[in-house]
Order: sequence, then structure tokens, then C-alpha cells
Amino acid sequence: METVSVNKAFGGTQGVYSHHSQTTRCEMTFGLFLPEEANDGPVPVLWYLSGLTCTHENAMNKAGAQAWAAEQGIAVVFPDTSPRGDGVANDDAYDLGQGAGFYVNATQAPWARHFNMWDYIAEDLPSLLQENFALDMSRQAITGHSMGGHGALTLAMSLPGRFRSVSAFAPICNPTGAEWGRKQLSAYLGDDETKWAAHDSSLLMRARGFDGAVLVDQGSEDQFLDLLRPEALANAATERRQEITLRMQKGYDHSYFFVSTFMEDHVSFHAQHLYA
Amino acid sequence: METVSVNKAFGGTQGVYSHHSQTTRCEMTFGLFLPEEANDGPVPVLWYLSGLTCTHENAMNKAGAQAWAAEQGIAVVFPDTSPRGDGVANDDAYDLGQGAGFYVNATQAPWARHFNMWDYIAEDLPSLLQENFALDMSRQAITGHSMGGHGALTLAMSLPGRFRSVSAFAPICNPTGAEWGRKQLSAYLGDDETKWAAHDSSLLMRARGFDGAVLVDQGSEDQFLDLLRPEALANAATERRQEITLRMQKGYDHSYFFVSTFMEDHVSFHAQHLYA
Repeated sequence: METVSVNKAFGGTQGVYSHHSQTTRCEMTFGLFLPEEANDGPVPVLWYLSGLTCTHENAMNKAGAQAWAAEQGIAVVFPDTSPRGDGVANDDAYDLGQGAGFYVNATQAPWARHFNMWDYIAEDLPSLLQENFALDMSRQAITGHSMGGHGALTLAMSLPGRFRSVSAFAPICNPTGAEWGRKQLSAYLGDDETKWAAHDSSLLMRARGFDGAVLVDQGSEDQFLDLLRPEALANAATERRQEITLRMQKGYDHSYFFVSTFMEDHVSFHAQHLYA
Repeated sequence: METVSVNKAFGGTQGVYSHHSQTTRCEMTFGLFLPEEANDGPVPVLWYLSGLTCTHENAMNKAGAQAWAAEQGIAVVFPDTSPRGDGVANDDAYDLGQGAGFYVNATQAPWARHFNMWDYIAEDLPSLLQENFALDMSRQAITGHSMGGHGALTLAMSLPGRFRSVSAFAPICNPTGAEWGRKQLSAYLGDDETKWAAHDSSLLMRARGFDGAVLVDQGSEDQFLDLLRPEALANAATERRQEITLRMQKGYDHSYFFVSTFMEDHVSFHAQHLYA
């Protein structure tokens, strides 16, 4: 692992690190905010998964999470959204290939060799973090925005016991039923739609739910509402009697201004469960 | 004036607007955060002047001011740092020309025609804001980062009665005595150094001071400390018995992580004086 940069922030440190990943078979970069308390011993961890086109950097600079994480003594990890580099497959579209990993393990050419973001987030990066930083991996929570909200919800439901709480900002809720999803799942996983269900949080909610609390914020003026399909998740969660708070926030769009506005609530929500 | 974008943020709106300026003789873009309270009537205004290489956008996205401004019911204006465009003079260096207006009215070729950022911030933009938004121009405060901290301090001291309070993050404190300053003042104002004194906050502090409270934060690990010369301002302010809080913040550098860490303190400081 190499240290790319470290900036003091909110009494702790905002670091950027790179490492060779065995799962994505390329150099990966991530951001990690460590609160001051990490100097004294392991601290809880909040994962923030980003959306389409983002790197590790966007949320780290624009989501405002560090202020609240510092207040709560929680670390925040900002992974990249895909493998990257000259040797890595790509597509001209903004929503496929590099910057658009969709948090799945691809099985189809040309993606299968590098696009294993599920394993990267679920296995590879947690091991690296545990080895190198003062993090209490028994106290983890996860959140994300848009494609990253999809990743947070599907990972949380599929890895029972891993995350104490899950939240999402304007998540892609039903990718098997919308173009943000069908396009990528078809490209990465092939045309057999039975393989897609494991990556659809509305279907997972119906099939198994989450053993813990869920918080989802959605802007009413989100320009991508038709692609996100929050109604599918709301329907599934309600039918299941899932412990959940779904909030339709009047007037907000899909931008980081929406994310940063509600970040304090999300960090507080996770802190409540991480310290329960 | 044209509306470039409006995003709901922290209960208010983060807008971006453009207009033709009579003083810089080109199209100028600025950001304006309006808190929810602006729906009910004029609100106080905090100016945020940015540093070298920045546009109106950097601080708007990365400084985290809106969260605290919303809490205090204060508007924040984010002007650009120079005139811009194909017809505007420029230089290959990052610290001269476009993105580096230094908040002066240039008198020298090729800068004199467009580089009138002092008048733009002091006259042109305030008029436009007053005409178009619910702002209480009798309650203004000003802050800034680096070159923008220089601008905030020099404007506040040179326009008595305009600003109730002034603060700065890692300001260029003594531009007549360092390469961040001598290079630009010479280019924009010519070689007669007596013309430079009006744009040096340490010299202004010695000559007239500020009739109100001043807050300055500086990171102890700032990579540009030699260029900023906070010791010159500290010396002048102390000799003058200026009401001031100067804080050397251990371990912080020159980045937006430093700015965002202390933004809450600065907005609270200004709110205290704007609502006094």
C-alpha cells in the first residue's frame, strides 16, 4: 500500500492510499478519513460508496462527511467505483466500464478480468484496511449515493452480520427494472436475468431484508427519479415490515448538495447503531 | 443576469449566476447560497473570496460553508477570482492573469482593461446582488482563503463601515514582502511600490486597522507559509491593539480540508457580529 496524500482535517486525517488489488487486478485508490480517536485505538467504520462517474475523490471533497464523522469518532472509507487504467476494459458511455463498476463481479467479456467490485468491497479492501489502520471491523456501517446506494443496500442485505446499519442517498433501487441497471447487469453478468436478482435491492428486500435499521433519502426533484425507482424499494420494504425510514425530501435533486444536506442525519443514524 | 443553475441545499438554494460586468468588461459567474429565511425577507451576507486558480465553484463545492450559513440564516456569495474568456489577457503561470486577479484594479498593460477585481467586488457585484436577491446589504461580512484572505482583509480595512466583521483562512498577509504579491502587484500596478501599499493587509493594519472584529486561522504545516507571512500581520495587529483572534492551527496545511475544518467557527464568528 502506498500513501498518496494525507491532510489534517477536523482533528483527524484525510488520507488517500493506493494498492494493487488481487480481485480487480489493477492499482486501486481509496480515501480514508480517520478521526482523532483513531490515535488511541480502533474506531468504527462507515463505508461510503459513490455513484456513476465518480472516483474515490468526489465524495471525499464534496459530501461533507468528515465534519460529522469527526464529531462521532467514526472513520469513513471512500473506495473508487471501478478498476481503472490503460489495461482495463472501458466504454465510451459514462455509465459503463471505468467509473461504473456497479458493485458486481463481472462474468462476461471484456469485463470479467478486472470488474470485480463486489469482491473488492466485500473482501479485498476490508482486509487491507484491517491490516493497516486502527479500525474496529466488528463495528461497520455502509452508505452510498445513486449507484453507490445500490451497492450499499445490496452488500448490506447479502452479507448478514457485516454491517450494523445501512443507508442510501437516492439509490438505484430496482436495477433489473430500469435502464440504470439492465444495461450494466446485461453487460457485466450476461443475458440470464436470474443472475441479476442478487444485485437488485428491491428484490433482495423482498427475499431476505436487512437485520437492522435502514435509512433512505430521496429528492423529490431528482432528475433521475425514473431510473432510480424508489417506489419498488418502498413497496418491498413495506410488505416485508422492514425496519426502515424512507424520506422523500421536497425540492432536492440528485447532486452533492442533496447528499451534503442530509449527511449529518446519515452519520448520526449510523453512529447510533455503531455505538449501540 | 442569467441563472446558470439552482440546487436546493440545506433548506435553501445554491445558485450559480452569470452577468456582464461593466468593470471587468466580460461575462462573470458567481455562486450564491440563500438560506431558507431569504423567502421571508432580506438576510445578512457573507462574502467568500477564493484563492489562486479557483473559480466561483471550488469553495461552493468544497468549503462546507452552506451547512453553517443555513444554521445561521446567512447568505454566502462566492465570486470568481478574475475576469475570464478568450478576449481577456492571460499568462501561462498559475499565479498571474485568469484565476489570479488579486483583488486589485490593474493599471498596466495588458491587464488594465479587464482586471478590475477590486471594483468588481466593491461596487459592481454588490449592486447586482442588491437588485436581484433578498439580501440585507446593511449587514455584510467578508472572509476568504489565501489570495482571497488577502482580498477580504484589504477590502474590509479600506471600506470602513461596509463589513461588520472580517476573517481569513491562511491569507496572503504581506504581498509587498513576498513573491505571492510582488510578482502580481508589479504586473498589475507597475513598479512604483508606493501604489502597492493599499493592497497589503499588514501595511493597512499598521496604517488604519479595522473597526470591528478580525479572525485569522493559519495552518502550522501550510506548505506556503513563507509566501503568506502571517508574522507580518500578527506584528502589525498587535502593535495597533487591533481587536483580533489569530490562531495557528497545529498540523493543518493550505488545502480545503483546513478551510472546511474551521468554517463552522468562521460562520459563527460572523453571525455573532451580523446579528449583534
